Amino acid sequence: MTEKIYDLIIIGAGPAGLGASIYASRYKLDHLVIGSEIGGQVTEAWEIENYAGFEKISGRELMEKFRKQSESLGGEIISGMVNKVEKNGETFKIYTEVGKEFQSKSLILSLGMKPRKLNIPGEDELVGKGVSFCATCDAMFFRGRTVAVIGGGDSAATAAIHLSEFAAKVYMMFVSGGLILEPAWMDKIKKNSKIEMIECSKITHILGTEKVSGIAYEINEEKKELPVQGVFIEIGSSPGVALAHELGVATDEHDYIIVDQTQVTNVKGVYAAGDVTTGSNKFRQIITAVAEGAVAAGSVYRKLKL
Amino acid sequence: MTEKIYDLIIIGAGPAGLGASIYASRYKLDHLVIGSEIGGQVTEAWEIENYAGFEKISGRELMEKFRKQSESLGGEIISGMVNKVEKNGETFKIYTEVGKEFQSKSLILSLGMKPRKLNIPGEDELVGKGVSFCATCDAMFFRGRTVAVIGGGDSAATAAIHLSEFAAKVYMMFVSGGLILEPAWMDKIKKNSKIEMIECSKITHILGTEKVSGIAYEINEEKKELPVQGVFIEIGSSPGVALAHELGVATDEHDYIIVDQTQVTNVKGVYAAGDVTTGSNKFRQIITAVAEGAVAAGSVYRKLKL
Repeated sequence: MTEKIYDLIIIGAGPAGLGASIYASRYKLDHLVIGSEIGGQVTEAWEIENYAGFEKISGRELMEKFRKQSESLGGEIISGMVNKVEKNGETFKIYTEVGKEFQSKSLILSLGMKPRKLNIPGEDELVGKGVSFCATCDAMFFRGRTVAVIGGGDSAATAAIHLSEFAAKVYMMFVSGGLILEPAWMDKIKKNSKIEMIECSKITHILGTEKVSGIAYEINEEKKELPVQGVFIEIGSSPGVALAHELGVATDEHDYIIVDQTQVTNVKGVYAAGDVTTGSNKFRQIITAVAEGAVAAGSVYRKLKL
Repeated sequence: MTEKIYDLIIIGAGPAGLGASIYASRYKLDHLVIGSEIGGQVTEAWEIENYAGFEKISGRELMEKFRKQSESLGGEIISGMVNKVEKNGETFKIYTEVGKEFQSKSLILSLGMKPRKLNIPGEDELVGKGVSFCATCDAMFFRGRTVAVIGGGDSAATAAIHLSEFAAKVYMMFVSGGLILEPAWMDKIKKNSKIEMIECSKITHILGTEKVSGIAYEINEEKKELPVQGVFIEIGSSPGVALAHELGVATDEHDYIIVDQTQVTNVKGVYAAGDVTTGSNKFRQIITAVAEGAVAAGSVYRKLKL
């Protein structure tokens, strides 16, 4: 009995993985997408206004469209965590957390990013007790409360705006020099009377025992405390490259998978796409992730079938 | 009186130009898009199934969505042909065919492609008399007729399929070695009883005086003629780089504008995006064009505002 060998397995089911699947289907590559969350981190995005084709759409809705399109074109998508990948000669073997095994002739790693942590006392201890890494998921639990969003980037801004629809007060706390926003978001923040920005030099501690009770921080070595019931950590994310390292895939100094214009990595048969790569000038938008996925699928097709 | 100087002028209003505009608006860049056709060549695409987010959409419809999104975000889009571009120190001056002038601090060239010609007798003479470069535009005029599509690529395939909805018979003629189709299209062609493929060694002449009456071609030096009333030329396209050359923008050996990961060209302040560039592994899809536009707008923003 011979085990099935797919043309292609795509690990990661965010925009890059699903974008790759759409093109893989058009190329009639026999392929499988495995992702721990269908739609990836984008499903947490409360409102997207910059994906061409949709003036305003939630991440969940957009990713649902991607999934349906991929499946209607013949893509096979399964939800699951891959915990090991091996290369045996010309084929790859993928092991999932629940003990399933799959084989393929090529891989696209669209592993996305994982949220970065503050690494301060109280953070790990109070997760789910007021500390959250996902405003879209948890905002509704803070109706009428006072919350802090930690971070000065677009994801912090969108989290703050979203939270302001529920919370009574939202502090957006960022470390000096760390405020880098799309001006469109900056405008919305300034116009929002519930949001107050706090520039600090250091965030030192999340306070509370059973539940979050506040945040300790410093401004120019002056120690301060702010009473809040929720802390949303939005300080960016880092590439999720554990599987890539297992395969010997090369990454740059910030751990992004190095790809060329064809999206191939240094390992034969292994391609990468989306936020996890050095591609698209590290622009890391949905549109660039999908485009990289498409290019990667095209490269796999040319490699296997032409 | 000082003349207005835009932060950015985007020349070309296809997916790359409109994609750039969407991001330029998010960045609050004061910008103008000028294109001879809003939506570019994509508006001729009869059916698109590989742009993530839409299972099936016409090019015209998709580009209308892009245009509306760009305008609702504040983008200024005008229809017009640019016939001259100058760089004067740090600013650019754009002259349109109808005598308008605009100035900007930076440019994105999203010039797209122009259809390639066969360069055989009868082609120029019979344009509009049975010779067409746009199946989507002209298919309806060939109801019940016999037509030939020249070309072996995806655009030829989609033209043939579209024409088969109107014409009684469609020949898809390609030169040996020139059949390069997405397998999904190949399937549809094979299942379509109205479409017949003809592999030839050379297409020599489009026949007819007042109207197209046939095609002369060769198979292994044997001369043949095929009576048809319409000839659709779908042999690809070449980059529309005349304006780029005027500015001294460097192109590769096939005349694509050379860009790096930031989409910048060799000329300071000049960026390029979409099919006209060497970017995205020359994949030349809507999704890659939009992504390049977004990256280019991001680069302009970083250059001008950060």
